[in-house]
Amino acid sequence: MKRFWQSSLLLGLMLIMIAVLAIGCNQQSQTPPTAASIPEGELDPAVWGKVYPDQYASYLKQKEQTKGNSKYGGSVPESHLKESPAQVKLFAGYPFSEDYNDERGHVWALEDVINTQRVGATTIGSCWNCKSPNVKPLVDKMGDSFWSTPFADLKDEMKHPISCANCHDPKTMALTITSVPLLDALKTRGIDPANFSRQEMRTMVCAQCHVEYYFKPDNKKVTFPWNYGLKMDDAEKLYTEINFKDWNHKESQAPMLKAQHPDYELFSTGVHAANGVACADCHMPYVKQGQTKISSHHLQSPLNHISQSCQTCHKQSEDYLKNQVIGTQDTVFKAKVSLETALTDAINAIASAANNPAAKADMMNEARTLHRQAQWRWDYISAENSMGWHSPKEALRVLSEGLDLARQAQLKANLAVGAAVGGTSGPEAGKTPGAGTAVDATGQSPAPKQ
Amino acid sequence: MKRFWQSSLLLGLMLIMIAVLAIGCNQQSQTPPTAASIPEGELDPAVWGKVYPDQYASYLKQKEQTKGNSKYGGSVPESHLKESPAQVKLFAGYPFSEDYNDERGHVWALEDVINTQRVGATTIGSCWNCKSPNVKPLVDKMGDSFWSTPFADLKDEMKHPISCANCHDPKTMALTITSVPLLDALKTRGIDPANFSRQEMRTMVCAQCHVEYYFKPDNKKVTFPWNYGLKMDDAEKLYTEINFKDWNHKESQAPMLKAQHPDYELFSTGVHAANGVACADCHMPYVKQGQTKISSHHLQSPLNHISQSCQTCHKQSEDYLKNQVIGTQDTVFKAKVSLETALTDAINAIASAANNPAAKADMMNEARTLHRQAQWRWDYISAENSMGWHSPKEALRVLSEGLDLARQAQLKANLAVGAAVGGTSGPEAGKTPGAGTAVDATGQSPAPKQ
Repeated sequence: MKRFWQSSLLLGLMLIMIAVLAIGCNQQSQTPPTAASIPEGELDPAVWGKVYPDQYASYLKQKEQTKGNSKYGGSVPESHLKESPAQVKLFAGYPFSEDYNDERGHVWALEDVINTQRVGATTIGSCWNCKSPNVKPLVDKMGDSFWSTPFADLKDEMKHPISCANCHDPKTMALTITSVPLLDALKTRGIDPANFSRQEMRTMVCAQCHVEYYFKPDNKKVTFPWNYGLKMDDAEKLYTEINFKDWNHKESQAPMLKAQHPDYELFSTGVHAANGVACADCHMPYVKQGQTKISSHHLQSPLNHISQSCQTCHKQSEDYLKNQVIGTQDTVFKAKVSLETALTDAINAIASAANNPAAKADMMNEARTLHRQAQWRWDYISAENSMGWHSPKEALRVLSEGLDLARQAQLKANLAVGAAVGGTSGPEAGKTPGAGTAVDATGQSPAPKQ
Repeated sequence: MKRFWQSSLLLGLMLIMIAVLAIGCNQQSQTPPTAASIPEGELDPAVWGKVYPDQYASYLKQKEQTKGNSKYGGSVPESHLKESPAQVKLFAGYPFSEDYNDERGHVWALEDVINTQRVGATTIGSCWNCKSPNVKPLVDKMGDSFWSTPFADLKDEMKHPISCANCHDPKTMALTITSVPLLDALKTRGIDPANFSRQEMRTMVCAQCHVEYYFKPDNKKVTFPWNYGLKMDDAEKLYTEINFKDWNHKESQAPMLKAQHPDYELFSTGVHAANGVACADCHMPYVKQGQTKISSHHLQSPLNHISQSCQTCHKQSEDYLKNQVIGTQDTVFKAKVSLETALTDAINAIASAANNPAAKADMMNEARTLHRQAQWRWDYISAENSMGWHSPKEALRVLSEGLDLARQAQLKANLAVGAAVGGTSGPEAGKTPGAGTAVDATGQSPAPKQ
């Protein structure tokens, strides 16, 4: 009996040890924070890097410019316009038709915004948002006058690209939100950021920038269109309500919306978000660095570290997982390209109809609204940075709506002209049904003539 | 030291016992088969039921007619045509426009095929396929003359609905393929069914019937269009190649394809199939029946037994899992309904244009081809029995293509008429771009007039 208890005790101790070891594997065992070693208000990542050299070294790896294992992403500043010439037409009349490259990563944020041809004499301070940790203290000092201040006037203030101080409290190293637009948006939605768990913060620090936004018409402040929710439809509802447009399309004259990069919003609709996965789980996995284990600050495609990012949950092979991602992206890409063709056709049809003095004005306006709606859906997925992977079903839903709407825009423009000449083409011409015609209750129709 | 070894031995034994218990839980501990107790060639499920009363009792539960937890399925013979009157128009000129109800389950297979209004004087023997275990021995006896024999002439031979003998060897109880069309299709694809694992057979017995098929024009034999692969596009490629049609649409005069129920094919494109999940894993979970554990033969929606079907792999709550399924189905359903509207518009446009003697014949033919292609995509998802759940991304891909094609059909029909009257409406009318117009290399277009 005594031996039984001894054995049980031994077994119990062994199980506790195993449990402790197992838990230990899931904890972050990083360099202990050195209290107060980073001065309050310090924005230079090199200074932070002296205290956290491993994290800083991984952050600096963002300088690498490579496609890596990505098919649709990577950190090479490839031109959207060269890869897909249709986009030159889609953005006609807007600076994105002239210069539109893939992002290279946080470390390049300042250099790239300074050098893009989209920036000109009328560019405003809002365009510095999400480029530098220097923005927050400046907004604190200048108030909302920051946003409409000329871009060029603020250039000398921007010393560092997106880095440590954008997401961390220098005293405690805790994740923190420094983006004024995100703080505003959360307030609008009645959310207190103090209630976010650490795991939620591992997404919310990314949501500071990887979101859709617009410049508020009165003061040009960067604003997130989250009043009605986070989905594509919610943003569109707000934009319609406030009669917002980014530009008039040069060819169709439609009042257009430019989508930014709604990575967080699209991700929010997907299965990873539904299961409590954070952006950092995939994009900043724990990696071994010498004797310590850190969150990688070399933010990149998880395809470049499938074992650390995906296989912590998904036990299939790296090849299987990579093929799942790329295969899904291929499907989304193909639908996106189909929508580019449909939008091109719609724009051509509207521009052509507009040349006809007899074109019915109300139908032309409907066609332009349909163009706006269709292209908003295309851009929402095109400008998002995962080629649909952040939420494949939602991406395909949005694109399928876009395809329907773009073709309806084309139909409506044709009808605006066709209806005008209908009187000369026999009694049936005017009856050609437009988009959205409902089948009648009996489903009956005249028997065909052939 | 001695105590350490004793303790280790004890620990080892305990671990072995735990392992044995755990393995035991995953094994099927059904009533031991009674060798040769079921006569060779016995087709009556009631006779099989005497040896396997638990399985038979669960099989008989299929008689229940209920929506259960389903939103889009269930075993109630609801009318597709009443739920969605647009389908009356979509199937115009084909018997599915007159009678098209949801399936009630295997146990009702004979009764339902006998009573449907789709069966008439010209119905052939092929329509008995997948209704009864009596088909296989009859085909063995009659050869390929079975398929074109009048339906009515074979009625007295059909004694039992789909049941035990369709999937099991009476001697060994092993899963077996008795469907001649599936055996043919596997041969065409160079697959030897003898090489299927038991887990693969737990899908392949379902693939005997839950598939797309057509009647081979020469002998009316039920045939699966798998020559080029299992996807929607592969079947369409074959049908185009052999110039196959199910009927001429009464209103558009398009040569149409009717999709059957490509459950297996759609499932094959999805993530469950990619992970080795079989149909039976979800639709025939292991259940406790008295002292034994059996595969449920009450085939139904897994939403009615989420704990046994889904939670063996997915550890989220039942509510979460149900919402994932229904939410995805809602998205697919919405796209499907949009496509019904687009198809209705396309049919109306083609029928209307056909009334115009000046309609360009080549464009009318293109419009009809587009109608055929678009409706094939709609029907492939509509006739499939999971409202897209078997492979949501593929379902949305197929529907998004359908939306584009249906609207292109409508455009082409309008253009067939518009082009005919273009000469009277100014120089621009004929230039209205049709579907698929590519953007030119420079992306330039004439400046708008407004």
